[in-house]
Amino acid sequence: MSELTKVVLDAMGGDHSPGEMVLGAVNAVKEKKDLFVYIVGPEEKIKLELAKYEYPKEQIEIVHAQDEITCHDTPVNAIRSKKESSMVVGLHMVKEGKADGIVSAGNSGALLVGGQVLVGKMKGIERAPLAPIVPTVNGVSLLIDCGANVDAKPSNLVQFAQMGSIYMEHVVGIKNPRVGIVNIGAEEEKGNALVKETFPMLKACDNINFIGSVEARDFPYGAADVVVTEAFVGNVMLKLTEGLASGLIKKVKEGMTATPVATIGAALVKKQIKNTLKAFDATEYGGAPLLGLNGLVVKIHGNATNKEVKNALFQVGTFKKQKINEKIKQYLLGE
Amino acid sequence: MSELTKVVLDAMGGDHSPGEMVLGAVNAVKEKKDLFVYIVGPEEKIKLELAKYEYPKEQIEIVHAQDEITCHDTPVNAIRSKKESSMVVGLHMVKEGKADGIVSAGNSGALLVGGQVLVGKMKGIERAPLAPIVPTVNGVSLLIDCGANVDAKPSNLVQFAQMGSIYMEHVVGIKNPRVGIVNIGAEEEKGNALVKETFPMLKACDNINFIGSVEARDFPYGAADVVVTEAFVGNVMLKLTEGLASGLIKKVKEGMTATPVATIGAALVKKQIKNTLKAFDATEYGGAPLLGLNGLVVKIHGNATNKEVKNALFQVGTFKKQKINEKIKQYLLGE
Repeated sequence: MSELTKVVLDAMGGDHSPGEMVLGAVNAVKEKKDLFVYIVGPEEKIKLELAKYEYPKEQIEIVHAQDEITCHDTPVNAIRSKKESSMVVGLHMVKEGKADGIVSAGNSGALLVGGQVLVGKMKGIERAPLAPIVPTVNGVSLLIDCGANVDAKPSNLVQFAQMGSIYMEHVVGIKNPRVGIVNIGAEEEKGNALVKETFPMLKACDNINFIGSVEARDFPYGAADVVVTEAFVGNVMLKLTEGLASGLIKKVKEGMTATPVATIGAALVKKQIKNTLKAFDATEYGGAPLLGLNGLVVKIHGNATNKEVKNALFQVGTFKKQKINEKIKQYLLGE
Repeated sequence: MSELTKVVLDAMGGDHSPGEMVLGAVNAVKEKKDLFVYIVGPEEKIKLELAKYEYPKEQIEIVHAQDEITCHDTPVNAIRSKKESSMVVGLHMVKEGKADGIVSAGNSGALLVGGQVLVGKMKGIERAPLAPIVPTVNGVSLLIDCGANVDAKPSNLVQFAQMGSIYMEHVVGIKNPRVGIVNIGAEEEKGNALVKETFPMLKACDNINFIGSVEARDFPYGAADVVVTEAFVGNVMLKLTEGLASGLIKKVKEGMTATPVATIGAALVKKQIKNTLKAFDATEYGGAPLLGLNGLVVKIHGNATNKEVKNALFQVGTFKKQKINEKIKQYLLGE
């Protein structure tokens, strides 16, 4: 049997907490024998949820934490003051090496701060980027950085490119991933000061497959596998993609029920449209990893359901088995 | 009769030049008696196109320019060296006051450079932003700046907010337009250095209706009428919107013809979907204005057809009649 992966699951903070969190954990351990989940949160509530299901009891343990960080808490304060919250208790367990990683649907800002402050950055890593997998017309791209640390330096972006490449190759399984930098034109001389300074550094970097600039127009078509950008821009791209996709789908649906004839047509075409739009659902890849830390921190959507929870738990397993942090040390830091 | 608006139309540089350019001009002058169009480009080619149509001859004049700036030219070089190009000849006409504005489907970078260098910024205006109208689920928003001058200062962004407000109120007709700044969170303390410094300045600005931060997720839902941001981010947002909209529509179409049943359904629902997606077509508002210059420079899409050309010509008329530049002088510069 392969080595056990131990994952902390923050049971609280999501829209469907703790119900969907617990179900995700149950489904995950039923599927993988080498997975162990610490469900962290209010013991009584979690027990009630677990009682609903049959599952291998030896693979799940409840760790009691009475408090909860909500979306109304300010990140730094919450991490400092809510010591009994499920998120802080869970992050400490990763820090202490009791678990390989943590999965949370809670307050993004708090998780980003907590990941860096409590779990801690690997030695030599300047910044820990948040790197969600974003669906494209042809597959998926890793958009790195979408986190909370804005105004990055060129050397930060070079590390993002390297860490992102390792992740896409060994966790997502894309050989020799193409790395591009977000720019407002295809030529090397285009861009803002940050991009102009970073571009030649990426070009000179011999452990990535740098293909140059990526225009935002081509991003939804999968112009690169690893799309490097500063966090402010990445965050805007990620949220615009989410907002526009839901907005357009809403418009299409409105059109489909605007007349009786259209409604009949909609009934016939619905299933196929759903199937193709499923390609725009990235939850099968788990959540967004916060890379470069002494343990994997995975942010799942606030409205995550059990499927996303399960896949995020598996993601920590792949991350461990593929020895991603060891590879980061080796490739980036020459250790 | 109201005062004549004189507009230069750059006949070249677009994907459908000069055919669609000329037809756009013909349709425009047929509809508006108070519009005069100088079509600038190779005389023989334009004559051949004009010969196809009936139109009031006294409202169109050809201005010969033998050369053309293409999409392969680098902007600064092209403006400097291609003195006989339709774009440069046209920009000079605006500079000399022979026309109120220019409409061009040509090389965006060259038009932005040429607008600033040849037509020139108004006294007191620090930067001339490119401000396209972007369709939203509920209407349209002005995204300002999407131009080529990146790394803006806070004072630039304040002027963008003011000019954008005037434009949206008096050209597009939205009373007391809501102004928002693109940010990665709703709170005032969020953002990068530029946004943090600009936010209180916008808040203190008494001639705009500032509503605070706009998250990219809410942009497609029309979160603000005037959406202020630095050009790099604006350009990324504009192009991502275009790319994602076309990508999603492609996916939906694929789904609609994936099976025989779906194909029948698609036939029934097609018309209504088209109607609703039309709401995502901003060409009825003309092109993207470059604001703050001594004359209006309007960038239309490279693949613009006659409808967009016509509306952009009308746009210059509205801009003139509404005395936008006088209003900018009055509100921004206190003249």
